[in-house]
Amino acid sequence: MHNSQNQPAIDALMACILECEHCATACLQEEDVKMMVRCIQLDRDCADICKLTMTLLARGSEHGKHLLRECMEVCEACAAECGKHHHEHCQRCAEACRRCAEACRSLAA
Amino acid sequence: MHNSQNQPAIDALMACILECEHCATACLQEEDVKMMVRCIQLDRDCADICKLTMTLLARGSEHGKHLLRECMEVCEACAAECGKHHHEHCQRCAEACRRCAEACRSLAA
Amino acid sequence: MHNSQNQPAIDALMACILECEHCATACLQEEDVKMMVRCIQLDRDCADICKLTMTLLARGSEHGKHLLRECMEVCEACAAECGKHHHEHCQRCAEACRRCAEACRSLAA
Amino acid sequence: MHNSQNQPAIDALMACILECEHCATACLQEEDVKMMVRCIQLDRDCADICKLTMTLLARGSEHGKHLLRECMEVCEACAAECGKHHHEHCQRCAEACRRCAEACRSLAA
Repeated sequence: MHNSQNQPAIDALMACILECEHCATACLQEEDVKMMVRCIQLDRDCADICKLTMTLLARGSEHGKHLLRECMEVCEACAAECGKHHHEHCQRCAEACRRCAEACRSLAA
Repeated sequence: MHNSQNQPAIDALMACILECEHCATACLQEEDVKMMVRCIQLDRDCADICKLTMTLLARGSEHGKHLLRECMEVCEACAAECGKHHHEHCQRCAEACRRCAEACRSLAA
Repeated sequence: MHNSQNQPAIDALMACILECEHCATACLQEEDVKMMVRCIQLDRDCADICKLTMTLLARGSEHGKHLLRECMEVCEACAAECGKHHHEHCQRCAEACRRCAEACRSLAA
Repeated sequence: MHNSQNQPAIDALMACILECEHCATACLQEEDVKMMVRCIQLDRDCADICKLTMTLLARGSEHGKHLLRECMEVCEACAAECGKHHHEHCQRCAEACRRCAEACRSLAA
């Protein structure tokens, strides 16, 4: 099952989870943490929503597909916010979020 | 924040999570486990979807509201399946799922 | 099962999860967010560790007991940090973490 | 941070999460589901404990290391149980659990 059509989305979700968790921690350690508040908040939500979506897709649940649109939305919001910051962790996170949004869109189609 | 309008839904989500986790375990211990397969599967999904929804509502995320409809759907599906079985854990779970679906509907309105 | 000896710990875990999720969000909105960084980091970890512990206790897993000591430790660390700050959300979170640590200690005994 | 010494464990945890979620679903669909009950229960616990461990390692939390021993234990228990069953999903899950236990042991050392 998880070698199937779900696999590209699962891979993208996993990469996105890791980057979001890492980015939130790294943002908290930045000198100007106040500028990173929105980024941290979106990282938290994006990581948790991706974690559930990955779980449901891995278990082959019919509810996995239901979460794809919401997952896409939070990934796009997080990519947009992270993309505004020049920190390497933000740029990497933005890229992982964009790829994840695309993978969710492909699977939802 | 969590003393506010979100609180009734949060309380209902928590009760639902506990009953779903408990029901899945209890179903696995039933003599006729084969009859309980659909119930176990829905318990797993319902518990996990409610856990994320509760988390997002507790943190005051704008994405909490986005999950209410999906949460309602899985709660209703789980209530319908659990309601078919006479085991006390299934009946309790069905009731908790119904209350949770209602609380999510009220909050979404 | 979850009306049993696990119930006080489950109740304390739930209260702790809600306060930690809320406190992290509220800390991010404080004027002097830089002072709250350690608090936010501990809130994140404490909420997630309590969520797993609650889940395992609710499902009656033998692994629930294994997590009680770690859960106690993170709750105590979070209570100590939150207790340093005068914000109402921090004081409430500190109190919920202390109660949760006590409930985990009682159940582990 | 997550390109560092944590990465092998994170990779092994992710593979283990996917196989456990998949194995639980596939076990529920087996003809003789009653024989698979212990496997399903361990798959649930192992997936959830690995998910938290992965999350804490990805975010660079000091609590990640604290979970490695418990994670190792549940992975070994799950590998032992899955290893008894000839189903392909069980054999794959057993292998992923063994690799994950090893990766956690290496990181803990």
